[in-house]
Amino acid sequence: MFFKKLQDRTMKYRVGICQFQPRLLQVTRNLRQLEIMLRGIRADLIVLPELATSGYVFNNQDEVNGIAEDGIAGPTACLLKKLAHDNKTSYIAGFAEKEEDRIYNSAMLVNPSGEIFIYRKTHLFAEEKKWFQPGDTGFHIFSTQKNIKVGIMVCFDWIFPESARSLALQGAQIIAHPANLVLPWCQQAMLTRSLENRVYTITANRTGKESNGRKNLEFTGMSQITNPEGKIIHRMDKIEEGVYIAEIDPDSALDKKVTAWNDILADRRPELYINSSIEDR
Amino acid sequence: MFFKKLQDRTMKYRVGICQFQPRLLQVTRNLRQLEIMLRGIRADLIVLPELATSGYVFNNQDEVNGIAEDGIAGPTACLLKKLAHDNKTSYIAGFAEKEEDRIYNSAMLVNPSGEIFIYRKTHLFAEEKKWFQPGDTGFHIFSTQKNIKVGIMVCFDWIFPESARSLALQGAQIIAHPANLVLPWCQQAMLTRSLENRVYTITANRTGKESNGRKNLEFTGMSQITNPEGKIIHRMDKIEEGVYIAEIDPDSALDKKVTAWNDILADRRPELYINSSIEDR
Repeated sequence: MFFKKLQDRTMKYRVGICQFQPRLLQVTRNLRQLEIMLRGIRADLIVLPELATSGYVFNNQDEVNGIAEDGIAGPTACLLKKLAHDNKTSYIAGFAEKEEDRIYNSAMLVNPSGEIFIYRKTHLFAEEKKWFQPGDTGFHIFSTQKNIKVGIMVCFDWIFPESARSLALQGAQIIAHPANLVLPWCQQAMLTRSLENRVYTITANRTGKESNGRKNLEFTGMSQITNPEGKIIHRMDKIEEGVYIAEIDPDSALDKKVTAWNDILADRRPELYINSSIEDR
Repeated sequence: MFFKKLQDRTMKYRVGICQFQPRLLQVTRNLRQLEIMLRGIRADLIVLPELATSGYVFNNQDEVNGIAEDGIAGPTACLLKKLAHDNKTSYIAGFAEKEEDRIYNSAMLVNPSGEIFIYRKTHLFAEEKKWFQPGDTGFHIFSTQKNIKVGIMVCFDWIFPESARSLALQGAQIIAHPANLVLPWCQQAMLTRSLENRVYTITANRTGKESNGRKNLEFTGMSQITNPEGKIIHRMDKIEEGVYIAEIDPDSALDKKVTAWNDILADRRPELYINSSIEDR
């Protein structure tokens, strides 16, 4: 009996958030900073901000074209492949993806094996609509270390409950959420996203101010990890730069029960839900 | 110019929450308490708790059968029709609805004209599954005073984002939410529901403890009204009994813009959303 009790039945899974301030258009500098920040930190999965290596407040399409890169062979992918191999860690990072003549606000998952999976942001925010194509991948889940199922959404996707729901319905245990947040609501709302789907969420936001002369943005930091009960495991402050690692049990996100009688996914009644607005039907 | 400025362009709409402690199975007493509480209070819409006239912690099916009533001709409908007429106020109240041999956990909207509309709770919570049929109405919006569009959901419907979304997609300006809440999460999550749909929400929760000898429940009160920006207009405390009236501008819920570039409903991409779990497809 005691022996059984002493066995640790929960999986220990190390997840991290990397919060920092990318410098606008300074890709090489940003890659170097990431390399320094992540060197020697071993975890199962670390999530980086949206557009982590390029900055955000672009002035014109030429600037965006200049920093957009290939999702497999570009500089961000190359650095993360090297780090993933060296640190035996999976990374999820936002980047501007160039595919032929189209540019997406994307996120890549890079596994230690060298595998790369890409998600293209579904819901573009504000002026992003000028620079990027709306994502065409839809919401998918990917296997990371120890066969844990991770879904990806990027920044403004958070305000659409369908984003996290689409991932949870496919079995996501963790929702990785690279972000460049400027509005004040997301971090609190992500507690609801966790709770309503009973998943972990990892929001990696950037810090700092950015200006292109025409427009000034201040990012809200407060990157956080939440658990399936809708609680904050850790929330960074608004300005700190660094990597925070937490140990979680992703298998607890497989249990969708909120009471003995209620399973949050099985209790859904999709036949009664309305998915399109009146005008579209 | 000044004349135009001085004109008040926003609609003043008076909405209320009625928070109190119904007594288990004491329908006549509960109706009398409601009549006293609501007498002389004139508003456009007042929302009452779930199962407002029957109490909640039933012991067996006979008790439920005993308090279930007709949605048009039962005692709750009769009282609310009288109050609606006298006070020129619409009411939304939860009640146990009997239709032939089926019993639903329902809510009725009663307009001053005598019109009655009924919503049957879609997502039953815990032991409610023993006493009630799952609702078969789906989510609909109804016109109340001044032609404002109100959607109804009941208690545990809150945890499914599809409930509020289904109402918002049909044009709800206000989501009325009769509740008997015992878990700690809903009131905070309703801020997300408001924000993600840019609607007002009115959660009318009950107070007090209830026991049937076998089971003890403590309800969380904290009935609240939230606005389309996800802010609390008013939140009652855990135990107070009373009616709180706020003035709102429901037409502000018609504006779904969060930035000059983003409309929270028009930006949805239903073709990329997943609505059913893998097992169901």
